Amino acid sequence: MINFLDIIEYVGTFAFAISGIRLASLKRFDWFGAYVVGLVTAIGGGTIRDVLLGVTPFWMLNSSYLIWTAVALFFVVVSGNHLTKFANTFFLFDTIGLGLFVVVGFEKTINNGFPYWVAIVMGTITGAAGGIMRDILITEIPLIFRKEIYAMACVIGGLVYWLCDLWKVDVTVAEILSASSVIITRIIAVKFQIGLPVLKSTNDLDES
Amino acid sequence: MINFLDIIEYVGTFAFAISGIRLASLKRFDWFGAYVVGLVTAIGGGTIRDVLLGVTPFWMLNSSYLIWTAVALFFVVVSGNHLTKFANTFFLFDTIGLGLFVVVGFEKTINNGFPYWVAIVMGTITGAAGGIMRDILITEIPLIFRKEIYAMACVIGGLVYWLCDLWKVDVTVAEILSASSVIITRIIAVKFQIGLPVLKSTNDLDES
Amino acid sequence: MINFLDIIEYVGTFAFAISGIRLASLKRFDWFGAYVVGLVTAIGGGTIRDVLLGVTPFWMLNSSYLIWTAVALFFVVVSGNHLTKFANTFFLFDTIGLGLFVVVGFEKTINNGFPYWVAIVMGTITGAAGGIMRDILITEIPLIFRKEIYAMACVIGGLVYWLCDLWKVDVTVAEILSASSVIITRIIAVKFQIGLPVLKSTNDLDES
Repeated sequence: MINFLDIIEYVGTFAFAISGIRLASLKRFDWFGAYVVGLVTAIGGGTIRDVLLGVTPFWMLNSSYLIWTAVALFFVVVSGNHLTKFANTFFLFDTIGLGLFVVVGFEKTINNGFPYWVAIVMGTITGAAGGIMRDILITEIPLIFRKEIYAMACVIGGLVYWLCDLWKVDVTVAEILSASSVIITRIIAVKFQIGLPVLKSTNDLDES
Repeated sequence: MINFLDIIEYVGTFAFAISGIRLASLKRFDWFGAYVVGLVTAIGGGTIRDVLLGVTPFWMLNSSYLIWTAVALFFVVVSGNHLTKFANTFFLFDTIGLGLFVVVGFEKTINNGFPYWVAIVMGTITGAAGGIMRDILITEIPLIFRKEIYAMACVIGGLVYWLCDLWKVDVTVAEILSASSVIITRIIAVKFQIGLPVLKSTNDLDES
Repeated sequence: MINFLDIIEYVGTFAFAISGIRLASLKRFDWFGAYVVGLVTAIGGGTIRDVLLGVTPFWMLNSSYLIWTAVALFFVVVSGNHLTKFANTFFLFDTIGLGLFVVVGFEKTINNGFPYWVAIVMGTITGAAGGIMRDILITEIPLIFRKEIYAMACVIGGLVYWLCDLWKVDVTVAEILSASSVIITRIIAVKFQIGLPVLKSTNDLDES
């Protein structure tokens, strides 16, 4: 039996995998390489979270994530240059997935007995670490460190969930508010090109 | 008491370490850096596998892997420019090691109670992830994503083992067939320069 | 109740975080990116150690490390170009932190029932892996592989602790001798520009 949350999670996995596969195609990766980059983008964050929490990585208990990444690869191969038409759709899927991933990461951490601040970190890792691993695999400086409030949206989502818990808000409402805050923050940030301040470089560094 | 499988495993470790140390030498690494890159190449895949399976990394229970990597470093330092003479030998060692690593990764995963598809993934990680980590350490795009059916050979080896298990083939025979299929696939792929199709780039990416 | 060792550990965390944040500023990272790079530099080595040992990463049990990294970010943002004035102070903090990290990593490994040679490896990972992760995040070839006897100092510190244990030296004395040997080795290496030999490149590599 599949429920609504599962569907959103698979949509998010699909969207994350697409983002990895498309970047891999720019680097002339073969199908296998593109699949691995897509998979790492989709499941990398959750895997790091689960390893840090000391539990079995989620994708080893359910083959859906590997299958959805294969579907994403098939989709990119078949669509080719027509993919850009769906750019807005992908952005939406990706952002909805992000919101859900943060909630999943937050709840799993709390359920494993860790305090709220660890849950906020783990929610952010779940949402953002896959993209960092993707960029390392294609030897680019992680985009997330220089553009958009992508990761800050995850932190905000975690903070919202925490506040909901403090105020004894119902779990389902907390989940919706937390995921929505991630989604809205990111959409606003992209629409109005809001970013965090760049750290001023100290040119005369004598770093060794 | 050392047995035949141990010998092959050490030969594989040695060959993997050599491959890492030689690439490190191209980047002007010092001895320590070369040793680390060689070690990561040799034990990186198995370490990721063991962390994901939730067991103690194999090399922390047996110092042979660190020692064989030191022997490999010594060998490269002493041989210097004469190393290329042995290129074919190294390729053979590397490929035999790959076959064995896949079998070891597959079996360890099954013995830890995971299903076949996880075992295929873990066999591939055992064989291929060390090389990916090596390339990240030397800031190169992982070769495996663009050339040869290196990783696909690992997947094929895992599939062969799985079929053997389905058909109730004797374990030793399954091991030999699985490792052989990895070795033969890779040799054929290199000899006839067979590769996977490259993913067509969608130049007008508006990735953000 | 805070004790002397805690203070040194926080000083080391602060110094490691500063080194990551400064390098991130050279790459025009935003505040969040700089914070992540600083955090990974400070806690990355200990996290890898704890994952390999199969215990909960230390920073998930005590929020001080995240807070000290935030203080480091605030400090860099406020100081700006005046930071270079403190270069020698940072080097000293960084080196003292390194010495302590090696001792902490060594002892935690022994306390978890692993042999001495694993403890030496883990001490080195605790001290040096954070810097390697930092360099991977900013897409630079890890400095440690090409310059200074940074990592070798960690190995020497581990060997000293091991010898102290063999000779039944009192634990506190062993800790001081081990940390001191790390600190002195690094200071001497930097002062006299002592490095490990670079591995001779075999130009005619046919690596595939």
